[in-house]
Amino acid sequence: MPTYHIEMLAGRTVEQKKKLVEEITRVTVEVLGGSPNSVDILITDVPRENWATGGILWSEPRP
Amino acid sequence: MPTYHIEMLAGRTVEQKKKLVEEITRVTVEVLGGSPNSVDILITDVPRENWATGGILWSEPRP
Amino acid sequence: MPTYHIEMLAGRTVEQKKKLVEEITRVTVEVLGGSPNSVDILITDVPRENWATGGILWSEPRP
Amino acid sequence: MPTYHIEMLAGRTVEQKKKLVEEITRVTVEVLGGSPNSVDILITDVPRENWATGGILWSEPRP
Amino acid sequence: MPTYHIEMLAGRTVEQKKKLVEEITRVTVEVLGGSPNSVDILITDVPRENWATGGILWSEPRP
Amino acid sequence: MPTYHIEMLAGRTVEQKKKLVEEITRVTVEVLGGSPNSVDILITDVPRENWATGGILWSEPRP
Repeated sequence: MPTYHIEMLAGRTVEQKKKLVEEITRVTVEVLGGSPNSVDILITDVPRENWATGGILWSEPRP
Repeated sequence: MPTYHIEMLAGRTVEQKKKLVEEITRVTVEVLGGSPNSVDILITDVPRENWATGGILWSEPRP
Repeated sequence: MPTYHIEMLAGRTVEQKKKLVEEITRVTVEVLGGSPNSVDILITDVPRENWATGGILWSEPRP
Repeated sequence: MPTYHIEMLAGRTVEQKKKLVEEITRVTVEVLGGSPNSVDILITDVPRENWATGGILWSEPRP
Repeated sequence: MPTYHIEMLAGRTVEQKKKLVEEITRVTVEVLGGSPNSVDILITDVPRENWATGGILWSEPRP
Repeated sequence: MPTYHIEMLAGRTVEQKKKLVEEITRVTVEVLGGSPNSVDILITDVPRENWATGGILWSEPRP
C-alpha cells in the first residue's frame, strides 16, 4: 500500500521510467514486506521553467 | 476549506469532471458542513506512462 | 485507481471520516466507473497553525 | 531545505515565475534562515478544467 | 487562488510561521495580482526521521 | 534532484526507513544518474483512520 510520488525534471525516457518503477517496487517489498501489487508509483515530469533552486528557475542560466 | 487532490489516469471527459466535482462538493458539505464555496478540488490527469502498480507502468502490457 | 488526498482542518471525528470516504467512493464509482476497491483516499488533518488564508494562520484571531 | 509546491491556474508568464521564485526564496531565507540554495520550489500550472471551487470547474461559466 | 504547500523540518515556531505566511502572501499578490484572500498556504512539519537527503535520514549522523 | 514522497501506513521502524531511503537513493542514481545528494525523500506516516480503500478506513474491520 505504500504510494510513491516522484518528481523529476522532464526528459527521462520510458525505458528509464520502466526500470525505475521496477527497482523501486522491488526494494520496497524487500524492506517493508507486502506484495508488489500493493505498491503504487506516480511520476511527475516537471518542466525546467517550473522548478527553482536557490531562487532561480532551471530554465534560466545559473550564475 | 477542505482541499481535494484527485489523481486519475488521463482520458476522462470534461463532462465526467464536471459531474465528479459537483458530487464530491455536495457530499463534502453534507458530511462536514460548511459552504460549497469553501471546497476546492484539483484534478491531475496522469499519463499511463507515469503510473505504475506492481512495478509495471500502465502504458506497458501486463503479464 | 483514482487516488484522493483530502486536506482539512484537524478536528473531524472518525465517524465523519467513515461517512466521507464511503460517500466519496460511491460517487466516484458512479461517475467514473470502476470498482470501489480501486479508490484510495488519504486524509490529512491540518493543525490550525499550519494553514493560512489571506496571510493569516487559522490559529490566529482574524481582523 | 524547505520545499515549496505552488499550484496556480495555468497562464502565468515565465517572467512572473522568475520573479515569484526569487521573492519566495528571499523571504524564506529572511524568516527561516539557511541558504537560498536549500530552497526548492516546484510550480504546477493547473488547467482551468482541472480546478473546481464550489463544485464548479473554472472552465465553466459561474452562476 | 494560488495554493502553497511548504514542507520543512519540524521545529519552527508559530512566530516564524506567522511571519512566513504573511510575507509569502504579500509577494504572491505583488507578482501575480489577485487578492490576499485567494492565497492559501499549508505547512507540513516533517520529523527528521522522515526526510532523507543523499540516502541518509536527517535524524542520523552524517558522515 | 528527483524528489520522492512516500506515503505508508504508520508503524514502520526507523531501521526500516533508514534501509528504505538508502536503497531508493541507490537505485535512483543507478537508473537516472546524478549524485546521491540530489535525491530527497520525504516519508509520510499515515494513521489507519486516515487511509481508506474501497470506501472503508483501514482502522475499521473489513467485511
